[in-house]
Amino acid sequence: MRVLVNIAYMGRDYLGFQIQQNGRTIQQQFEKILKRMHKRHVRIHPTSRTDRGVHALNQYFHFDTELNITPEKWQYAMNSALPDDIYVHDIQFVSDNFHCRYDCVGKTYRYKIYQGAHKDPFQSGLKTYIPYQLDIEAMQEAAQAFVGTHDFTGFCSQKTEVESKVRTLYESRMVVTEDGFDYVVTGSGFLYNMVRVLVAFLLQVGQGKKRPEDVPRLLEAKDRNQMPFTAPAAGLYLEKVYLSPESLIQDFGEDIRIHRKKSLEND
Amino acid sequence: MRVLVNIAYMGRDYLGFQIQQNGRTIQQQFEKILKRMHKRHVRIHPTSRTDRGVHALNQYFHFDTELNITPEKWQYAMNSALPDDIYVHDIQFVSDNFHCRYDCVGKTYRYKIYQGAHKDPFQSGLKTYIPYQLDIEAMQEAAQAFVGTHDFTGFCSQKTEVESKVRTLYESRMVVTEDGFDYVVTGSGFLYNMVRVLVAFLLQVGQGKKRPEDVPRLLEAKDRNQMPFTAPAAGLYLEKVYLSPESLIQDFGEDIRIHRKKSLEND
Repeated sequence: MRVLVNIAYMGRDYLGFQIQQNGRTIQQQFEKILKRMHKRHVRIHPTSRTDRGVHALNQYFHFDTELNITPEKWQYAMNSALPDDIYVHDIQFVSDNFHCRYDCVGKTYRYKIYQGAHKDPFQSGLKTYIPYQLDIEAMQEAAQAFVGTHDFTGFCSQKTEVESKVRTLYESRMVVTEDGFDYVVTGSGFLYNMVRVLVAFLLQVGQGKKRPEDVPRLLEAKDRNQMPFTAPAAGLYLEKVYLSPESLIQDFGEDIRIHRKKSLEND
Repeated sequence: MRVLVNIAYMGRDYLGFQIQQNGRTIQQQFEKILKRMHKRHVRIHPTSRTDRGVHALNQYFHFDTELNITPEKWQYAMNSALPDDIYVHDIQFVSDNFHCRYDCVGKTYRYKIYQGAHKDPFQSGLKTYIPYQLDIEAMQEAAQAFVGTHDFTGFCSQKTEVESKVRTLYESRMVVTEDGFDYVVTGSGFLYNMVRVLVAFLLQVGQGKKRPEDVPRLLEAKDRNQMPFTAPAAGLYLEKVYLSPESLIQDFGEDIRIHRKKSLEND
């Protein structure tokens, strides 16, 4: 039986999703519970390996089990054993050929920034504080320029180890909020650190240090050295995961190109 | 020169205010910075030694210095060196006979509770989740019954080591919020765990396990065994500190009895 789990977590106190030799990770929290229930190691497979300090409003993983437990009881068992900063929203049974990673056709990330005269200690780890004024219209224009299919070599970590660095962004926009703004981006997939590099670039545009017109040239250059910053993890949220072409078409229309994962990627 | 410092902090990752042999505390964070600046140990004196996990929207401490630094520069020096979850709001110079502890005539605490169908991992450490229905009117009536001068022996930790357990509450009320409610209480002072025991009692009233009419009897009984619960630290915020009788009279009127601290108390 393949079980699909929809979870949310505050990433503040975790070293990321993926299991590590030492330290708390989201995967470790779940595999600990599953090991106790199965009396053996059970591996979980997420749609996205979020980094240290990165949050998820919606993340998925799947695992296989021989246990005969209803979805409601799975949810109850997990939520009872999990710490307060992880929550299981939903459990479904799926077919054995469904795979969280390979069936994922898109993801939405949100990056939260707050402004104001004072830093707010209660936003620590949850939003990024930018004290200086920003030109939000220029940022919006630059954000839009990334929509479409591009080689994002210049906008990811140089440690990224994937064959192709071409990704398609379905939306890329600034949203004004109560105390600042969010950057919302939906794409076929994301390279390692890609959203945080995009945010760092947009913040430079907001300060007038880069211009929206620089985007085509920087994409063309494929040179990370021209884009040396990475925004902090704290403001980053995995907001939505698209597990079927239909769900992506519903949000972005018939005309989009759907990209199926064929191999392991850094996102 | 005596320096008065107004700070806010998210207590989630601290063992409390007071310095301890091992582990992060708020006092330790500031004394580390002051030691670096003075090349010697400088002790800070808070109005309130908040417990592990308890937050402060407004907390004060003072210290003495021979350094010739403006308030603006003190604030800048501290905020530059502090972690993101502590923030210095204001710095003033005060007279040498001012004392944060002994001049404190009142404090307001707020306890935040949220309700709803699902636990929210992003409230972890910040608000307490109560899934069951609560009778807020009964809680309001019970909260009001604590206003006035009472012996709170039955509503504090049995570890409390102070001469008198008589305290005066100027306000004690429930406030409805977006996602639940807060308990707001202002008093001359608070015994060890007192707010959290009051909240635990009010939650029992909300569930119908205790009644508002029980309050006089429980105060009279002076027996903590009749009131065995303590609400978690996560929802508790030190919200306001009254450092002069005038400020307290401004909020609660001329008729109130002002209590000056004469000796060390557990609050």
